[in-house]
Amino acid sequence: MEVIRLKHTGFCFGVRRAIERVTKEVDKGQGKVYTLGPIIHNPQTVNMLKEQGVIPVDDLSQVENDGIVVFRTHGIRKEEEAYICEKGLKSIDATCPFVKRVRKHAVYLRKHGYKVVIAGDKNHPEVKSVLSYLDNDGIVLRESCSIEGRKIGVVSQTTLNWETFRDIAAGLLGGAEEVRVYNTICRSTRERQKEVVETAGLVDVMLIAGGKNSSNTARLYEIAKQVQPRTYHIETEGDLDPEWFSGIRKVGLTGGASTPDFIIDSLDRRLKNL
Amino acid sequence: MEVIRLKHTGFCFGVRRAIERVTKEVDKGQGKVYTLGPIIHNPQTVNMLKEQGVIPVDDLSQVENDGIVVFRTHGIRKEEEAYICEKGLKSIDATCPFVKRVRKHAVYLRKHGYKVVIAGDKNHPEVKSVLSYLDNDGIVLRESCSIEGRKIGVVSQTTLNWETFRDIAAGLLGGAEEVRVYNTICRSTRERQKEVVETAGLVDVMLIAGGKNSSNTARLYEIAKQVQPRTYHIETEGDLDPEWFSGIRKVGLTGGASTPDFIIDSLDRRLKNL
Repeated sequence: MEVIRLKHTGFCFGVRRAIERVTKEVDKGQGKVYTLGPIIHNPQTVNMLKEQGVIPVDDLSQVENDGIVVFRTHGIRKEEEAYICEKGLKSIDATCPFVKRVRKHAVYLRKHGYKVVIAGDKNHPEVKSVLSYLDNDGIVLRESCSIEGRKIGVVSQTTLNWETFRDIAAGLLGGAEEVRVYNTICRSTRERQKEVVETAGLVDVMLIAGGKNSSNTARLYEIAKQVQPRTYHIETEGDLDPEWFSGIRKVGLTGGASTPDFIIDSLDRRLKNL
Repeated sequence: MEVIRLKHTGFCFGVRRAIERVTKEVDKGQGKVYTLGPIIHNPQTVNMLKEQGVIPVDDLSQVENDGIVVFRTHGIRKEEEAYICEKGLKSIDATCPFVKRVRKHAVYLRKHGYKVVIAGDKNHPEVKSVLSYLDNDGIVLRESCSIEGRKIGVVSQTTLNWETFRDIAAGLLGGAEEVRVYNTICRSTRERQKEVVETAGLVDVMLIAGGKNSSNTARLYEIAKQVQPRTYHIETEGDLDPEWFSGIRKVGLTGGASTPDFIIDSLDRRLKNL
């Protein structure tokens, strides 16, 4: 069985940067290191960091005063930023710069009188963060929907599926005199989506490795599944079912932006030995 | 046979305003009155004005120095404006204000660093006018097409079909970080397109009356034809073919924004006597 490993795999820029920052802080050994929420959406990586002493917390009240809080890639909420300021907590901002760009454009649009639409998932921490910086004065859309307004501004969750984004933006064109659209889907997401679509049609089975809680990984799975019905979303090699591969010649293998190389490597080895 | 006459018919605001301005000027009797190009795209109306002494010219060099030039609803080109200034010709601007809005948005977008796309027909005088005010630094698209650029600004010809506009704007979303879209299809166009689609499916034959050179009339015809294959674009009752109506119960009747009421009235009478 031939394993076709995709080119665009491994940590994306924002994830690599965040992991480096938190690791560097642990290495200093100058107090407890916390992350607000999982630093990235990959349970294996979060567990590895836990073993190194990193403490993920859901709420800032769990942070001791002499600890240091690292903001995860998806960003924090405005009220969390206020709390940190007020309490004088030490912090390191590991928010992905591309996520910050979504926030920047959204805030700019609202300031200039646009009704702001965030194309994305209202339960995702990135979207929650952006919305909080709009003082929750924004509309989150997961699918095309008509909205009335003189000026509508649109941004996208960085990890959104491109077709979904286009449909949402296009659906808004009829309801306003002006629609201003910032395509803030990040480059890594675009490249991976493009490559996965191209490959899914050429292989017999497609494997997407990554956290089940990872939005960009879930999107890759959805996109690949449309082209290749025999697509599976797995976290580790323990999720592999040998039956998927009986009589198969080619298998495509890739991971999301938060999937570490060691997981892809171990899957690659395991597949070659099936 | 029942004739269903659509509600949104007769001259639109811009056309009515232009005709009033030129007629008022003729009534003054203070010299020759010229229009640069046909004042509106309706040959019957243009002929009636000719009989009143209005002279349509294709080129400003045909205008005598003591004459007065009326700019048509579709606007003039920047170089024509310069010529008029230079020669000190008297002029009256009967450009439709909604057409001017297209120009205003397009010029604003270019000034702010957007690559400007005009969704429309490159041969239409409105589009030629807008493009000239961009010093021809704009792209005219008649159908969806991918364009690369950091910032793309989009406007529409006032009389464009809404679906075409949406497809063109949506098609541009993938090639830029920011796409800023002004939906400058005018209200009259929107209302007529909406009503014609609603009616075309309810009648056995649909008649669209108006100049063969009228863009908005041609769009109404195209849109209606998609819903009701038995749709005809006619200019006057002389174009009616009684065979179209054999065994027919209901006929829908409407006109473009430049189709005078007297044409609709005469068609209505003729149809009732078939």
